[in-house]
Amino acid sequence: MQAKAVGLTQGLPVSDPNSLQDVTIDVEQPRGRDILVSVLATAVNPIDTKQRQGQSPVTTPRILGFDAVAKVLAVGDAVTTIMTDDIVYYAGAVDRPGSDAQYQLVDERLVACAPTTWSPAQAAGLPLTTLTAWEALFEKLPFTAAADANLGQSVLIINGAGGVGSMAIQLAKWAGLQVVTTTGKPATTEWVKQLGADIVLDYHQDLGSQLAAAGLESVDHVILLHSTDQYLPLVTPLIRPLGTIVAVVTNQQPLPMALLKPKSLNFAWEFMFTKANYQLPAMATQGVILARVAQLADAGVIVPTTKRTLAGINAANLRTAHEIVETGQMLGKIVLTAPFDA
Amino acid sequence: MQAKAVGLTQGLPVSDPNSLQDVTIDVEQPRGRDILVSVLATAVNPIDTKQRQGQSPVTTPRILGFDAVAKVLAVGDAVTTIMTDDIVYYAGAVDRPGSDAQYQLVDERLVACAPTTWSPAQAAGLPLTTLTAWEALFEKLPFTAAADANLGQSVLIINGAGGVGSMAIQLAKWAGLQVVTTTGKPATTEWVKQLGADIVLDYHQDLGSQLAAAGLESVDHVILLHSTDQYLPLVTPLIRPLGTIVAVVTNQQPLPMALLKPKSLNFAWEFMFTKANYQLPAMATQGVILARVAQLADAGVIVPTTKRTLAGINAANLRTAHEIVETGQMLGKIVLTAPFDA
Repeated sequence: MQAKAVGLTQGLPVSDPNSLQDVTIDVEQPRGRDILVSVLATAVNPIDTKQRQGQSPVTTPRILGFDAVAKVLAVGDAVTTIMTDDIVYYAGAVDRPGSDAQYQLVDERLVACAPTTWSPAQAAGLPLTTLTAWEALFEKLPFTAAADANLGQSVLIINGAGGVGSMAIQLAKWAGLQVVTTTGKPATTEWVKQLGADIVLDYHQDLGSQLAAAGLESVDHVILLHSTDQYLPLVTPLIRPLGTIVAVVTNQQPLPMALLKPKSLNFAWEFMFTKANYQLPAMATQGVILARVAQLADAGVIVPTTKRTLAGINAANLRTAHEIVETGQMLGKIVLTAPFDA
Repeated sequence: MQAKAVGLTQGLPVSDPNSLQDVTIDVEQPRGRDILVSVLATAVNPIDTKQRQGQSPVTTPRILGFDAVAKVLAVGDAVTTIMTDDIVYYAGAVDRPGSDAQYQLVDERLVACAPTTWSPAQAAGLPLTTLTAWEALFEKLPFTAAADANLGQSVLIINGAGGVGSMAIQLAKWAGLQVVTTTGKPATTEWVKQLGADIVLDYHQDLGSQLAAAGLESVDHVILLHSTDQYLPLVTPLIRPLGTIVAVVTNQQPLPMALLKPKSLNFAWEFMFTKANYQLPAMATQGVILARVAQLADAGVIVPTTKRTLAGINAANLRTAHEIVETGQMLGKIVLTAPFDA
């Protein structure tokens, strides 16, 4: 069937009206483990802007959008965990058409029922950042994913106020960690404190002396959510021996990894699309994580990180959202809500 | 008391007779958790030659040697696990005087009783390489340290014929892993097969096509025991998504870590002196590991890796051993045995 969508056919600056266009696409009926959904809200993440900028020319419009809340219209014959009429949320797969579309096919293993007490605009801000933060904390770092299970341990989250950071702080606090994070202005400092950060360092100043002034000699592990090139050398002195640095942002230059050797440190990439891209059995963990986090959301343990909502999913609103995300100064998440009103 | 030793006062090429000299040093009585030992055999590792080459001029001779079998002469007042007259083995600490000396002080936590059925020359080849291989396999990689506990999993060990490689192969086989390794000539190929390697790749040829020809699409994890700069890009295509690359050799140039991101790979440094250098509580794990491996040695599960023994611990023999290790072509280990006969 046909669906309204916002797509692109080449990589253009977001100031160009052709960078994201209102289009019509064909969406097939679901087969196998796919479900067919009607999108209610879609969020924009840095991966959208990077994918848009790097898009080589194509004739069929590419659909971005890797964060959504949607209603299930139909399910494939091998689907076992999701039913028609469920309201689900998911990040999906980066190598398939995304959620900037009226209808979308998604693998059920990547999907869970959305928090029942949150609006679509609130829940659409969760999946990608939640999966990234969860996998960083509980799969890449050796922390335990349970309430107060890591008391006495600490994590430094570089750039706590962004999308992933806002979820990482909340999940880390839920798990009992002492959370140290970095911000650069009063508004972001207030936001991360509201989310539960214990120690907030000013990234314009020396991190080590601020950490020491806060009474901490070192942190157990680090999550880098801003320039890996810039921060790897800065956090290495702050982490305890045998600790792990998880990075999310692709380095632009080769990295001085020898700095990490005296302490026998570990460096781990967290890229949430790896599981789906390689069709790993572990891709089903993403549905499980989202189901668990929906419970935490409904229990009030975590709060929404959506900070701005644009009503109407269309090219103009999506360009606005891309433009804001491209500033790199986004606090929390930005979401577009249905209807599709091009 | 005074002790014969082999030391150095500056970094010189091993061809220079002054690069390693017969000296006399003072050794104090043991205090706290230290034990005083009489060295029976000492082995040479790449860290000895690197430390020798990089030594800045000093007036008191520096004593290298980070692998030994020794007899315990006295113990400090806080020692609880080691007794006088025990025959022990250990790597020790890189920031204290080493085992190229008649008498030495060592922290009991780094020490275990040597295999009772092995000669000092055999057992002195074990500690440093065993600790490195064990920590790489069972602390840095998620393998379980028990017989046949990892059946169905695989590890690629780059440079399996050297000191660490020779132990890593044996420990990996004991733990039930499928072991893939690399060699470059018939003698080393025969040696690694003798140690239990399942698949041996020729490092002069393309690794991926050889692995495929052997029926493996990928390996679970990788241990790099040769140039990290050279091998990191070569092994990245061979490892499964979410796998870990453990490296032992310091990189000379910044590393292209972005290559590891699509698979969300992990990179871990294994440097066995980290625990002692930072006086971590975990340093006691090294005594525990060595005790476990002594049992495996006495049970015949692992075989000696000492391939050459020089009788007499003196400067001439030690220079010879350094010269051989510096070639980087060493098969297994080289050991010097008492007496101190300068």
